[in-house]
Amino acid sequence: MVIVMENTATKEQIELVCQKLIDHGFDIHRSTGSNRTVLGVVGDTQQADTRDYEVMDGVHEVLRVTEPYKLAGRTFGPENSIVKVKDVEFGGSKIVLMAGPCSIESRDQIKKIGGLLSPLSTRILRGGAYKPRSSPYSFQGLGEEGLKYLREAGDTHNMAVVSEVMDRADILPALKYVDIIQVGARNMQNFALLKELGKVNKPILLKRGMSATLQELLMAAEYILSGGNHQVILCERGIRTFENYTRNTMDISAIPILKTLTHLPVVADPSHGTGIRKQVAPMARAAVAAGADGLLIEAHYDPEIAFSDGAQTLYIEQYEKLVEELKIVASAVGRSI
Amino acid sequence: MVIVMENTATKEQIELVCQKLIDHGFDIHRSTGSNRTVLGVVGDTQQADTRDYEVMDGVHEVLRVTEPYKLAGRTFGPENSIVKVKDVEFGGSKIVLMAGPCSIESRDQIKKIGGLLSPLSTRILRGGAYKPRSSPYSFQGLGEEGLKYLREAGDTHNMAVVSEVMDRADILPALKYVDIIQVGARNMQNFALLKELGKVNKPILLKRGMSATLQELLMAAEYILSGGNHQVILCERGIRTFENYTRNTMDISAIPILKTLTHLPVVADPSHGTGIRKQVAPMARAAVAAGADGLLIEAHYDPEIAFSDGAQTLYIEQYEKLVEELKIVASAVGRSI
Amino acid sequence: MVIVMENTATKEQIELVCQKLIDHGFDIHRSTGSNRTVLGVVGDTQQADTRDYEVMDGVHEVLRVTEPYKLAGRTFGPENSIVKVKDVEFGGSKIVLMAGPCSIESRDQIKKIGGLLSPLSTRILRGGAYKPRSSPYSFQGLGEEGLKYLREAGDTHNMAVVSEVMDRADILPALKYVDIIQVGARNMQNFALLKELGKVNKPILLKRGMSATLQELLMAAEYILSGGNHQVILCERGIRTFENYTRNTMDISAIPILKTLTHLPVVADPSHGTGIRKQVAPMARAAVAAGADGLLIEAHYDPEIAFSDGAQTLYIEQYEKLVEELKIVASAVGRSI
Amino acid sequence: MVIVMENTATKEQIELVCQKLIDHGFDIHRSTGSNRTVLGVVGDTQQADTRDYEVMDGVHEVLRVTEPYKLAGRTFGPENSIVKVKDVEFGGSKIVLMAGPCSIESRDQIKKIGGLLSPLSTRILRGGAYKPRSSPYSFQGLGEEGLKYLREAGDTHNMAVVSEVMDRADILPALKYVDIIQVGARNMQNFALLKELGKVNKPILLKRGMSATLQELLMAAEYILSGGNHQVILCERGIRTFENYTRNTMDISAIPILKTLTHLPVVADPSHGTGIRKQVAPMARAAVAAGADGLLIEAHYDPEIAFSDGAQTLYIEQYEKLVEELKIVASAVGRSI
Repeated sequence: MVIVMENTATKEQIELVCQKLIDHGFDIHRSTGSNRTVLGVVGDTQQADTRDYEVMDGVHEVLRVTEPYKLAGRTFGPENSIVKVKDVEFGGSKIVLMAGPCSIESRDQIKKIGGLLSPLSTRILRGGAYKPRSSPYSFQGLGEEGLKYLREAGDTHNMAVVSEVMDRADILPALKYVDIIQVGARNMQNFALLKELGKVNKPILLKRGMSATLQELLMAAEYILSGGNHQVILCERGIRTFENYTRNTMDISAIPILKTLTHLPVVADPSHGTGIRKQVAPMARAAVAAGADGLLIEAHYDPEIAFSDGAQTLYIEQYEKLVEELKIVASAVGRSI
Repeated sequence: MVIVMENTATKEQIELVCQKLIDHGFDIHRSTGSNRTVLGVVGDTQQADTRDYEVMDGVHEVLRVTEPYKLAGRTFGPENSIVKVKDVEFGGSKIVLMAGPCSIESRDQIKKIGGLLSPLSTRILRGGAYKPRSSPYSFQGLGEEGLKYLREAGDTHNMAVVSEVMDRADILPALKYVDIIQVGARNMQNFALLKELGKVNKPILLKRGMSATLQELLMAAEYILSGGNHQVILCERGIRTFENYTRNTMDISAIPILKTLTHLPVVADPSHGTGIRKQVAPMARAAVAAGADGLLIEAHYDPEIAFSDGAQTLYIEQYEKLVEELKIVASAVGRSI
Repeated sequence: MVIVMENTATKEQIELVCQKLIDHGFDIHRSTGSNRTVLGVVGDTQQADTRDYEVMDGVHEVLRVTEPYKLAGRTFGPENSIVKVKDVEFGGSKIVLMAGPCSIESRDQIKKIGGLLSPLSTRILRGGAYKPRSSPYSFQGLGEEGLKYLREAGDTHNMAVVSEVMDRADILPALKYVDIIQVGARNMQNFALLKELGKVNKPILLKRGMSATLQELLMAAEYILSGGNHQVILCERGIRTFENYTRNTMDISAIPILKTLTHLPVVADPSHGTGIRKQVAPMARAAVAAGADGLLIEAHYDPEIAFSDGAQTLYIEQYEKLVEELKIVASAVGRSI
Repeated sequence: MVIVMENTATKEQIELVCQKLIDHGFDIHRSTGSNRTVLGVVGDTQQADTRDYEVMDGVHEVLRVTEPYKLAGRTFGPENSIVKVKDVEFGGSKIVLMAGPCSIESRDQIKKIGGLLSPLSTRILRGGAYKPRSSPYSFQGLGEEGLKYLREAGDTHNMAVVSEVMDRADILPALKYVDIIQVGARNMQNFALLKELGKVNKPILLKRGMSATLQELLMAAEYILSGGNHQVILCERGIRTFENYTRNTMDISAIPILKTLTHLPVVADPSHGTGIRKQVAPMARAAVAAGADGLLIEAHYDPEIAFSDGAQTLYIEQYEKLVEELKIVASAVGRSI
């Protein structure tokens, strides 16, 4: 932490700041320039609230030097972490495809979709059982029954499965059935949920909140990591901007930046990231071109009759065409699918 | 719902759209212009996902006519709703002041603060027991013990009390001790929590998410209202924009707009809305000038030693001065404190 | 400027950074901690592009200590600047009201409006002659002819007048007729225009760009100030956010922050800031409550037939009622109208 | 345009709206439902300000059916437009590479860079002569002298050249020397400039404003097109969001959406879009994967000594490697470089 004093700061004001720093157990490197005094603060400043010093008289600005996250950062993990799910590796040289319907609608539906996607290089089957819907009047998912169907479909087609939990109470059933537990964008800062997932021994797919900064996403990951669960996969899924042609603005640029800031695998969800079927393929290709370690895509044999998010769901033949394109794009960045 | 077809749409494309609408139980008013066909859709379109039609061939645009919320809207409640907490009324002619520390730190601390604020027109004492902290390494609150101290402090000084819950599991203890249950910005779309609060017989103070549209805030309220709990107070507390001088941008303009869209009371939290002590008073005055029904403010006898958010917490003497200013501003809009 | 090295930075990397700093004429205060090295950079760092150092190997982060603006900042002007227009003072104890139609439509229209507003504590008459319209198919203003009518109307009713220029070529005619030259939001970073206005001896009303940070607004002011024209009035007029109920989100919080950062007067335009007639009065009151030095409001005897922006233009009787409310709000902050 | 009345609207209120529509020359299709009346408005509604009706009593909402742009839209141009610059085609099957330094610094510098880039599939040389700098204290460009050097360099290496104008006065010199005139993000709504460029017979590279919606970008293009100049190339170059790790957030998703909305060619500028050298290559690949027709990239033989934007400028060898990757990505979308 660096504290920059006003050029008009008095000697007493500087002393009061120093005193407060010492009270909090910090060491100080004082640099007195012709213009102003700058205090370098040494110690475990990650816990400090910079604003505590900003409001003091004579203080011009407080700058944070170290990021507030530790375990999620590159300092802690200079090498890319690999998160293993059965024999699938996130963060390795292969790009992982996860696909499936938005909602699990019936035993047959999910089994059929698994059968269609499995031959298309898709190692992980997705499907929602607990649905976060912005309207209380919308379909809310099949719950645990849905998870059971998902597990069966995965087992039948030799796929791992991923599904979302919305509440601490959903974790126990999820542990019985799924291989990866997903945390949705709206729950990215549901700290009660994150803490509980820190105690779990399953990979967590953590989606970026709609208006979360990358630092906040990494802090949310830190909640899970600091609880002891080191298997975290980050997921970009669209942010909120002033543009409203699409529901969200898929933030492709977050992908290479996250790869710089963290050792954790980074995947992208172009279905929620755009909300429009015909934008899914371009954004999926862009994500891989930008360095994503995997993709999460909604696909269905008949999106027209899907219970939810049909408008952003690919037809199987569209998905098939996309996978072929992705293989070429992956080769441009030295990877494969 | 209004569906606007492309001017190049074929007869068959129009028929397919009509067929789908009929399948979903809607009536259609067709208007064929020289340029293009427009379909007026009649029926309960609130459940419909406009994107299901947007992706059909020949469709140019789908426009939603009715808001997706019902109980929260002005159509349902043309008169302002009053939410009563003991003898305090939110949404009436009096502006309600809620104040207190960010965190409940000890029995003495909260009792002392209650004693200082109670004579200053402050009818409701606030204090956090379960703290949503962006870092897992920060102070996380006293939990139920804190709520007990808050209740005692309220009883001693004849104040009602408000505190935040972060998880469904926190609701039961909260019901024992608090008069108003607060839902924080990060949980505005924690639907599991909202549903549970719909079954509770206590007023809910629902904070706007950091990047929530006003429609999303009203949909979150709808979750509670549709569960049977009609005592909802909305709270503006700052949104996220590109400006980073302040942590959040306090959205004063949301206040008069919400008063137009909904019958529910609307309060403002200038402490979190700005994050900086010296901006709290101007924003508190602005909120009242813009029509807020109440304020939620952080105040402490010694912000310097507060466990959390000290930098945005007013000194008692600052709060006292502010209350005097607010009385004048309130009179400009025909209200009192 | 402070350069924070990576904790893995090698001795050579640190040397290369130091060498570059020395090449650019800076002095260095080196502080070597147990964890990492921090370089304090002394000299005229305002011209430096921090990114030049950020991209060097071993550099973790570069923090700017001084703001890039000088003349606009509080360091330069600890006292509030007063900008005088005839006998009207911006930045003094009186709050200045500027009002009038969006567009000057005819000699009679602007004269009539001046006559209606002048008795209502309105010292300055506004009216647009060069209109920045987002559509090339919309009314583009009367040009110089309009300015002539505005001047006449002002003289008749003893009001100063303000109007917008859009291009360097508009400055000369404007100088003949107006007392304050307005720069619109879309031209806030039209540097060719700003430079030219730096040479002019008239007050400039500089509107904040729709997505400009406060620092960028102050840098735009710096362009004018550094040219020698010290009569700059800043104007908040709404920013772009994700909310689209209103065209813009009026950023009331910018007002007290600007008053902290700069000595220049700060006014607010609630007409463009909201775009909706019934939101103008609440936002005007809020602006004064938050510390604005003046207001710029659109008013017309018949907004229904106004050539532009009728929907955000107040009826004269609405304006009259508002002025009375503003007088009370002003008294709450120790000011008058 | 569709006007939705309140369900409480009286007969007279509906009549007043109809009367106003008729006064403005529109035809009306009235649809009276059980709940509310909806008015379909027929005629040239592109000029109408929807807010004129929104503020009328009894009106619930006004929805625009047709986009406000005509010549830029897909309705006008169902086929992709090709913009030709010498023998280079924008919008065809080949992806066009434009590259060069941020600023033209000297005759030698630009000639040397042209010589290095020309063999690397780069058909167009870029270089700035009039520089829009946010600080008045920064290097402002060589002006017309710079354009002369750029022309010479282009002729020497058989490249077309592109450079930015900032003001109407810059157009004449630019016409003498450059093949494509660039309008920068800050001038996207400098309507005086756009109108003048509508009269010019040279291709215009129009950059998206930092916070411009896609509709606003297309309206800016409409200014040029409606003046008679149909050679417009759109350029995505990063938008402003809440994330501040990068200066801008490169909006890759804008590319496929623009290709849906308009027939004009769409290129991307990953240098300004990210502002950080190491993010340029991933974003360039992503842009091509998403369907961009070309790229505008800053490259220099020694970015360390570049007069401006060195931190986002590629080394020649980085550029060379990128071009190879881009060739593979282009093949995934059926194109070549």
